[in-house]
Amino acid sequence: MADIANPNFLKPIAAPDADVGCAITFNDAQPLSLDAGRTLSPFTVAYMTYGTLNPAKSNAVMVCHALTGDQFAASSHPVTGKRGWWDVMIGPGKPIDTDRFFVICPNVIGGCMGSTGPADRNPATGRSYGLSFPLITIRDMVRAQAMLLDALGIEKILCVLGGSMGGMQVLQWAASFPQRVISAVPIAAAARHSAQNIAFHEVGRQAIIADPAWNNGEYALHGTNPSKGLAVARMAAHITYLSEAALQRKFGRALQNRDSFSFAFAPDFQIESYLHHQGISFVDRFDANSYLYITRAMDYFDLAADYGGSLSEAFRGSLTRFLIVSFTSDWLFPTAENKRIAHALNAAAVNVSFVEIDSDRGHDSFLLDEPELFATIKAFLGSVAVQAGVA
Amino acid sequence: MADIANPNFLKPIAAPDADVGCAITFNDAQPLSLDAGRTLSPFTVAYMTYGTLNPAKSNAVMVCHALTGDQFAASSHPVTGKRGWWDVMIGPGKPIDTDRFFVICPNVIGGCMGSTGPADRNPATGRSYGLSFPLITIRDMVRAQAMLLDALGIEKILCVLGGSMGGMQVLQWAASFPQRVISAVPIAAAARHSAQNIAFHEVGRQAIIADPAWNNGEYALHGTNPSKGLAVARMAAHITYLSEAALQRKFGRALQNRDSFSFAFAPDFQIESYLHHQGISFVDRFDANSYLYITRAMDYFDLAADYGGSLSEAFRGSLTRFLIVSFTSDWLFPTAENKRIAHALNAAAVNVSFVEIDSDRGHDSFLLDEPELFATIKAFLGSVAVQAGVA
Repeated sequence: MADIANPNFLKPIAAPDADVGCAITFNDAQPLSLDAGRTLSPFTVAYMTYGTLNPAKSNAVMVCHALTGDQFAASSHPVTGKRGWWDVMIGPGKPIDTDRFFVICPNVIGGCMGSTGPADRNPATGRSYGLSFPLITIRDMVRAQAMLLDALGIEKILCVLGGSMGGMQVLQWAASFPQRVISAVPIAAAARHSAQNIAFHEVGRQAIIADPAWNNGEYALHGTNPSKGLAVARMAAHITYLSEAALQRKFGRALQNRDSFSFAFAPDFQIESYLHHQGISFVDRFDANSYLYITRAMDYFDLAADYGGSLSEAFRGSLTRFLIVSFTSDWLFPTAENKRIAHALNAAAVNVSFVEIDSDRGHDSFLLDEPELFATIKAFLGSVAVQAGVA
Repeated sequence: MADIANPNFLKPIAAPDADVGCAITFNDAQPLSLDAGRTLSPFTVAYMTYGTLNPAKSNAVMVCHALTGDQFAASSHPVTGKRGWWDVMIGPGKPIDTDRFFVICPNVIGGCMGSTGPADRNPATGRSYGLSFPLITIRDMVRAQAMLLDALGIEKILCVLGGSMGGMQVLQWAASFPQRVISAVPIAAAARHSAQNIAFHEVGRQAIIADPAWNNGEYALHGTNPSKGLAVARMAAHITYLSEAALQRKFGRALQNRDSFSFAFAPDFQIESYLHHQGISFVDRFDANSYLYITRAMDYFDLAADYGGSLSEAFRGSLTRFLIVSFTSDWLFPTAENKRIAHALNAAAVNVSFVEIDSDRGHDSFLLDEPELFATIKAFLGSVAVQAGVA
């Protein structure tokens, strides 16, 4: 049913010439059922793999990416040329050891690196979807990933891991497909998006929508690009990924290539130049409408709401083994939200470990060189593999 | 030298028909010397007063407003019709008791409610200043306020109070004019703007600058208004004025006038509608260029830098009596920054009290109904008045 597509068939507008890696396109016989009450068909899931699937297909590890991530977790990015966003974590001898495990990292539905998203061509109109693309949810992303696993002939995942929105997908995987998930590691995540986080996302969306180049989402048609709005959205979001302590240590009030104030509005401070760089480099690799859709999916995420308001019910009877990780200085997905997940799992008598890692680097700690995180993941995966009889 | 101006002479572009209260215009014989190395002349300081100045002129209290505040601290706002931003604090029988004290609240230089700012006419060109308005600093604001006091014939202030950027002005007053300031109350303030706070300000500025209607600051000339960019800036800033706990308590994930998700980008959540309202209502009363200039003044503020890097040196030998107030949930101007001021004052052997008030309402606590804040201010002012022999 599923066709292994030629990657060049895909057309991510944010990076029109990019190689998206592997991709599977599901045709009209296999539509994706969406929480919005609509279906998406045909649709493509782009993904990357690292390591080798063993003959028993028992060593598969799924890595779910965050809001602005993609499938290039452990290989250089085709647009930026930068190393993968979890290159520190995935590879031979690394915590997620590709000498032992077969790592699959899919691009989320709604994204812009090959999986079907608002920048892609709507077969019904022949034009880019734009806002006619259906709203998607974290559960929709996971449904598409499950179809990818089916197509690859993989029944069970040894471990599903991810940070931030990746952690939301991990929780959804464990809730939606408990029999397929042997172990689950949500990192710096939450089972629901908080009011403050929704607020920050809405600021980002309004920055994009306020950009006249956005053209009500039809910028592909108009040949414009809401890059200014998207850059502002990225700058605002980027502050929330760091901690005040890290910003103070890294930048403080240091000036950028000058000894005194310019008394003008060009960036005087290093922190300003840094933010500008974050904004400018982001728009080269990301689609503005994808940013709208994916932030909305995160806002909608409230796992307990699907289970009568009880997070424990989402995991009742689950045999999945959980490891929950948070960071002390993460104020976007704080320890309290992560503990809430651990408590719910405990209340459902599910096997769960909880680790709070001391780091002053904020939410982005999960992407950084954090030895305690590495050691924790390595030990957990090793233990899970032994328990599952994976060599 | 100073002329008591007809308020109607003034032309705040954000509120062209607004009554700005009282105003004094300083002519070319009294230019304002600016830290940028330029002078501003002529210039106007708009202000409001509450209560009656006693014959000895010894009961004057100065209130300094925050970034988006103005002189209407205790009277209804001429544009919005809303009650004054510190109406809870200032009035007969209130903590700053207008039956006893004569309260002066000036609009800052660079503002848009009557004091000279970028929206005003540049006499050299006959057009609105726009970006030809000089960059201003907190010290420049205070210099203008000192000239206002001179013009009013007031030598000493019994107390100068303010929250947030108002607190920065309080600190600058005490450092620049120690002999004129009998007591000083910086609330939820800092002696320097942090990297994180500069970052949030830069996001707001970039949102304005990204708006094509901003027209390089010349929107008055083009008949446009960068209201979308200014609204985004306001929304981003507003999140930082609240706490996560307050947002969770007040809004949580509650939906706005609906039972289920719309699966669209209109505001589904109450927090989104609230933010939109904050953005939209702000642009009716505030000038976008003023927002650029005043945020920049805050970013530049680093009192210690003017005293060889030692904050204590800013207050060495001062006889001013200080009360420092912070709030537990204020993450924008956290207790640590306020304690830093108290420590510096202690190290300079200056009389200082420090109070951290338990509140979960974030930075904006200083504007809200906080009984412990009211009691603290009332007791402090009463004590200062007795000490100074004010009835």
